[in-house]
Amino acid sequence: MMIRSDLRKETISTNRIKTYRNFPMVPRVVFGRGSFSQLNEILLPKRKNADAPFIFLVDDFFEDKDFVSRIPLMFNDQVIFISADEEPKTAQVDALVSRIKEQFDESPSGIIGIGGGTLLDLAKAVAILLNNTGLAKDYQGWDLVSRPAVYHVGIPTISGTGAEVSRTTVLLGPEKKLGINSDHTTYDQVILDPDLAVTVPKEQWFYTGMDCFIHCVESLTGSYLNAFSQSYGEKAMELCKEVFLGDIPEDESRDKLMMASWHGGMSIAYSQVGIAHAMSYGLSYLLGTKHGIGNCLVFQHLEEYYPEGVALFRQMQEKHQIKLPKGVCSNLTQDDFDIMVNVSLGMEPLWENALGEDWKKIMTPERLQALYQKI
Amino acid sequence: MMIRSDLRKETISTNRIKTYRNFPMVPRVVFGRGSFSQLNEILLPKRKNADAPFIFLVDDFFEDKDFVSRIPLMFNDQVIFISADEEPKTAQVDALVSRIKEQFDESPSGIIGIGGGTLLDLAKAVAILLNNTGLAKDYQGWDLVSRPAVYHVGIPTISGTGAEVSRTTVLLGPEKKLGINSDHTTYDQVILDPDLAVTVPKEQWFYTGMDCFIHCVESLTGSYLNAFSQSYGEKAMELCKEVFLGDIPEDESRDKLMMASWHGGMSIAYSQVGIAHAMSYGLSYLLGTKHGIGNCLVFQHLEEYYPEGVALFRQMQEKHQIKLPKGVCSNLTQDDFDIMVNVSLGMEPLWENALGEDWKKIMTPERLQALYQKI
Repeated sequence: MMIRSDLRKETISTNRIKTYRNFPMVPRVVFGRGSFSQLNEILLPKRKNADAPFIFLVDDFFEDKDFVSRIPLMFNDQVIFISADEEPKTAQVDALVSRIKEQFDESPSGIIGIGGGTLLDLAKAVAILLNNTGLAKDYQGWDLVSRPAVYHVGIPTISGTGAEVSRTTVLLGPEKKLGINSDHTTYDQVILDPDLAVTVPKEQWFYTGMDCFIHCVESLTGSYLNAFSQSYGEKAMELCKEVFLGDIPEDESRDKLMMASWHGGMSIAYSQVGIAHAMSYGLSYLLGTKHGIGNCLVFQHLEEYYPEGVALFRQMQEKHQIKLPKGVCSNLTQDDFDIMVNVSLGMEPLWENALGEDWKKIMTPERLQALYQKI
Repeated sequence: MMIRSDLRKETISTNRIKTYRNFPMVPRVVFGRGSFSQLNEILLPKRKNADAPFIFLVDDFFEDKDFVSRIPLMFNDQVIFISADEEPKTAQVDALVSRIKEQFDESPSGIIGIGGGTLLDLAKAVAILLNNTGLAKDYQGWDLVSRPAVYHVGIPTISGTGAEVSRTTVLLGPEKKLGINSDHTTYDQVILDPDLAVTVPKEQWFYTGMDCFIHCVESLTGSYLNAFSQSYGEKAMELCKEVFLGDIPEDESRDKLMMASWHGGMSIAYSQVGIAHAMSYGLSYLLGTKHGIGNCLVFQHLEEYYPEGVALFRQMQEKHQIKLPKGVCSNLTQDDFDIMVNVSLGMEPLWENALGEDWKKIMTPERLQALYQKI
């Protein structure tokens, strides 16, 4: 019999034994065109009683669309339409949680997020905060959530963020843009129905798809990578190339981008994103720039760090005639730059993954500001 | 609401609405060289009390190896060594369940399977039968298990079968070789430690690896395939090519084959295996041929159905100088052939996946017997 009282101690004392994350995977997934129709059947056994509603958080893009009639409502279930024009905020999560708690005596049977990264992240955070006291900002960080979330289901209607499969929900807080990274964040159920992405506007399709592409570049070139994450990242990258550089039918392209997002999200299990994400976080924090376009704005100027990735990105941009805004940072003050640089450099694991342990010597505040000034 | 009566086929067309399987994924996975050392930490919170043991079912290959001292035993935990020389049997599952029930007053805290496909399948089946009345043979089929299994952990020590990720446990019963296919079969936790595969003998490494390769060929050429399964199958196939045709370092090769097995198993979510597996089941049933070598014996003669796959297989066989036995079926009687042909043709979804809805017109008993006679 072996007694080991503290694995972390052992890791420190020997310096040879690594500890690996016990990664939480989505325990249930349906994939298929039209599979959204199975939602009712999936929710029925999860309904606690007639007074415990399912709350559907839905991108308000769908508010006037026929799609709404397909949401399987029963008893006191509620649909809340939410704009995805802005990045999800901790205060927004707190307000939703208060509203639900005031309106219903029973804790909900479940939270269903329907939309892109904003809606998927909000639904995860609401599910966590319904079962954990305090405010959303208290849980921004790593492994701060102690109680399991309310049952939550993720249904992406646009592909790329990987939010449907990740163990984080990235929120803009009063002090930082940072994820609630925890084992309880991951969805209990995901429905991948590529048909839901039929109505996505072209620019949004590109920016969100590039989130996945940039995940892959950052993950595959990062120092944290292992064979698990590499295999997912490589597959997601291949699928991105087929979707954005190949000539395949639209329905097949939607299928493949949905799988690219899924695998790209999985590849983060044992890797990390990198410079584009770290910089894009700063941009969002100061200017409210949406994550997808923010990544693109930054990534185009990172040829020194990701030469192959940036070359591919430009090919994709050209093929789909996507014009990015210019001069985004041209009117900013030194104080503004200081804020962005500080938020960005605060994302230590991202920088370490991208540039190694000595990243602080490579990416000085001056150098980072010069990159921001190009945008 | 839709009613699903039969999930053997992943999709069923009724009034133009398809129903897709809600696939159970392994909810927790650790990947990493040396990660077996985390088992104790993982099991601790799952221990119900001091009288509810963890039962470790371990391939008896390890009985005299140092590895045994690394199994984290506490209280009345028990290690049961089991030979993997024969395919796992329903009667063996029933005997293990009886033994555990007789020996312990409390239901176990969990079952941990450590080994290849045989051990991983036995552990799954024991975990199911501890919580479901009757005999293992009663559950061979699709979705016959009503109660959740005891907590079970899978730790592969050889790569290829995909048993670590699949929702089936394939058993040789009194009447058939057939899986217990159910949502409760899937492991609750998997530990993927490529270092555990260091001691695998070369022939066994090849045969088991080919199980994964053949999965991929059968899944990717099958009629059931969709974009979800295709993406996993393609990645597994690429990894198999790197491992069996490339020249990469041994440790990297072990990492990659472990991931190939994982993705190959996932690719079955919305696909099926095909002719080699259907025929190999007949061979096992009659002659007790182990699954890995059985697949190879059959697959080498399937160039008419899988021309590219068989060509690649021969390259791999040559590179690793693997000699397959000959004349395996040369002394069989007509009764023997009838049995094999019947068992094999009973695997209807496999044949339909491989040859389409009209498979019965293509694969007649005579034609199948002629294939067996080549082996």
